[in-house]
Amino acid sequence: MLPSVFLAFYYQESTISAFLYAIIIAVFFGLLFYSLKVKENIIRYKEGFAIVTFGWIAVSLIGALPFIFSGVLPSFADAFFETVSGFTTTGATVITNVEIVPYSLLFWRSFTHWLGGMGILVLALAISPALGVGTFQILRAESPGPISTKLTPKLSNTAKILYTTYLIITLIEIILLNLGGMPLFDSVVNTFGTLGTGGFSIKNASIGAYNNVYFELVITIFMLLSGVNFSLYYLAFKQKSLWHFWQDKEFKVYLGIVAVYILVITLNLCGSVFNSFWESLRHASFQVVSIITTTGYATTNFDLWPDLSRMLLLSLMFIGACAGSTAGSMKVIRIYLIFKYVQREISSLIHPRAVRAVKIGEQSVQETVLSSVVAFAMLYFLLFIAATLLILTQGLDIISAISAVACTLGNVGPGLNTVGPAQTFAPVSDFAKYIFSLCMLMGRLELYTVISLLSPRFWQK
Amino acid sequence: MLPSVFLAFYYQESTISAFLYAIIIAVFFGLLFYSLKVKENIIRYKEGFAIVTFGWIAVSLIGALPFIFSGVLPSFADAFFETVSGFTTTGATVITNVEIVPYSLLFWRSFTHWLGGMGILVLALAISPALGVGTFQILRAESPGPISTKLTPKLSNTAKILYTTYLIITLIEIILLNLGGMPLFDSVVNTFGTLGTGGFSIKNASIGAYNNVYFELVITIFMLLSGVNFSLYYLAFKQKSLWHFWQDKEFKVYLGIVAVYILVITLNLCGSVFNSFWESLRHASFQVVSIITTTGYATTNFDLWPDLSRMLLLSLMFIGACAGSTAGSMKVIRIYLIFKYVQREISSLIHPRAVRAVKIGEQSVQETVLSSVVAFAMLYFLLFIAATLLILTQGLDIISAISAVACTLGNVGPGLNTVGPAQTFAPVSDFAKYIFSLCMLMGRLELYTVISLLSPRFWQK
Repeated sequence: MLPSVFLAFYYQESTISAFLYAIIIAVFFGLLFYSLKVKENIIRYKEGFAIVTFGWIAVSLIGALPFIFSGVLPSFADAFFETVSGFTTTGATVITNVEIVPYSLLFWRSFTHWLGGMGILVLALAISPALGVGTFQILRAESPGPISTKLTPKLSNTAKILYTTYLIITLIEIILLNLGGMPLFDSVVNTFGTLGTGGFSIKNASIGAYNNVYFELVITIFMLLSGVNFSLYYLAFKQKSLWHFWQDKEFKVYLGIVAVYILVITLNLCGSVFNSFWESLRHASFQVVSIITTTGYATTNFDLWPDLSRMLLLSLMFIGACAGSTAGSMKVIRIYLIFKYVQREISSLIHPRAVRAVKIGEQSVQETVLSSVVAFAMLYFLLFIAATLLILTQGLDIISAISAVACTLGNVGPGLNTVGPAQTFAPVSDFAKYIFSLCMLMGRLELYTVISLLSPRFWQK
Repeated sequence: MLPSVFLAFYYQESTISAFLYAIIIAVFFGLLFYSLKVKENIIRYKEGFAIVTFGWIAVSLIGALPFIFSGVLPSFADAFFETVSGFTTTGATVITNVEIVPYSLLFWRSFTHWLGGMGILVLALAISPALGVGTFQILRAESPGPISTKLTPKLSNTAKILYTTYLIITLIEIILLNLGGMPLFDSVVNTFGTLGTGGFSIKNASIGAYNNVYFELVITIFMLLSGVNFSLYYLAFKQKSLWHFWQDKEFKVYLGIVAVYILVITLNLCGSVFNSFWESLRHASFQVVSIITTTGYATTNFDLWPDLSRMLLLSLMFIGACAGSTAGSMKVIRIYLIFKYVQREISSLIHPRAVRAVKIGEQSVQETVLSSVVAFAMLYFLLFIAATLLILTQGLDIISAISAVACTLGNVGPGLNTVGPAQTFAPVSDFAKYIFSLCMLMGRLELYTVISLLSPRFWQK
């Protein structure tokens, strides 16, 4: 929060005390927990899940304080929702007029995206073996040994390299936006939203407020880059070659999905919403990339598009970009494996004796990994349906409820209807805000991390 | 079609020639195909899938002829849709005013439900081992041997007993409805719609037109009974005991789901749609049973209910009743196994070393059966999304498209909005009608049967 204190000082904003109080509370609790002595030092998955879940909740509680103390979001439910949305890099907001919020607070809000994105990168490294999917490349490169040896100095080295990559890409985007004429402050916060695939904007009309094709192009490219498995950058950096990108099946499928969606939506928009093909392509490209990477920036109110395009965007909310990126949702690799899994089942019915392993490129995928992936997909849908039904008790219509749950569980941001890109989550009830906060946390922490805590078996000695 | 010829004669309807022409064509093609000599007589799954799929399509093509020849549905797309809807026991209709259709044709239309229901019962026996789920009880009771010995005289004995059961339940419902004051013709056709879990009605307001609590009660009970695994009746008949019902996990889960949905929807309706609790309970019970059994009868326009109830009914369309019944959709046993599968995955993350088999009651489920079930669920969703996107190109809104695909793929009947219970499928485009017909066929034949034909591997020697 210190950068925000300096900003508040620089812009002479009254939020300075809000941040100072929040820092004091954070330091107090930090020291308190730090002073606790832990008997056992062994961290298994079980303990890892608890640390990650409670850690993320604790950070969100502390992060919400400046919103409350500054009076921008006096309600706890609102402040908590906004902060969870920030750290989980969702970008759903309850601030109806973001253009009157002090700079220091806007910076903090977008900074949570950037920090959240970093958190996810290291989380992906640490928990991906447990979830059986994720940074395949890194696993092959770094850890041929068993899972328990993961949290070694080697891993922290890897994390450092990832962070450096993240920082470098961040700096390049800031410079590119600033060179194109975007004010420095805007360049920084919009970059935070891009790299974390968050999507908090400092304009009510999101990126559309600038109405600048160059900005959109830069942001589109950097959203796409933020949706790529960061271990590919790591490998490219280590081996000074882009060869791994063209070797990576997930990366190619990801680009393929983006291309097909852009094409279909462009054709759907052309003539019906925009008169020119280029205008259709411009907005279709931005929106498709923004949603598949679960960023959630908007250049136009896509909720006014034809239902085919709206449904396509809704379906993208369930896909998400590559594993090991800062994007949320199910991830391309899981969708790909699900297709392969179904395909194998059909083959096995035609030729019952020929049992074949599912492959990614040349590499066979373990059956336990496949089980984990399909169980994940089913848990995702079960949670999606359960949350949608709960939200429907709060008076939202079906499309609003479905899209709101899809875009919080998938860490996207704006949905359709009541929670569309020109709207906010402000009008929903506090109960709904807590449900959405839970969805964002569950989605961000790959479901199991949070869900396993609800199992009675978890708490057994 | 002969019963319809007699009915046309009895009611002095002009449809008599339509049925006679259709019979001539059916006999001609029947003899033609019968005269073809087959070289190889070995029927494996592959051949079985082709026989079932093409058989079902052929029956629908012939069955559509009376609709066309009588001039009731002159368009081929309409007549084909209506007949597929009949044989697949879906009950979605394109006839906007059913009350002016001749009796002989109404009888034929509902008779397709009854015949379709019988077809499904024997199909469930024949293909359930391939799909790894279905009539567990019968499999245990009748065929301990390998799969290739399934189509034995023993199986045809089993089929005969099932058909007898089906016939007896049919007669009992007809008598009960008729005794309560429903005209004989109405009792017969409404019973056909119940037993096949079809839902074609001969009133524009469906069962609601009678506004009779006794009729609704009888139909509700018989819909519930038609949603039960018919092998349980077979076992009860063979062993003169109802013990197997209380032993059957799926049966209990089925009743549990029905009870919970009725309770929640009743509470949601009470005060908002109906003033009295009993009125809410009456309509909630009928609708929940009608939709979970994928029948699709309506006593009221449930599309006007609050969105929570509408969404709950929509979710029921994906569940369906028990395997081995005449109901469509995913079936309770699959949903149950999916929950167990996800639960096991969560447990295995908490205690990675403890690998346990998924059980139904006391019996362990084979891993290949589990794979088949989860692959089925995922294929179901993939087809659901693909069909919804195709339908959206035809100008329907999102809710109409989603619910129309859900209720054709699940063989339910009416959906929401444009295809709601007070509407028909008549206004949709011909292209959409063919897509819906395909959905009904795929759903009815447990997806794989139809989908495997689309695989290039299928046609390899």
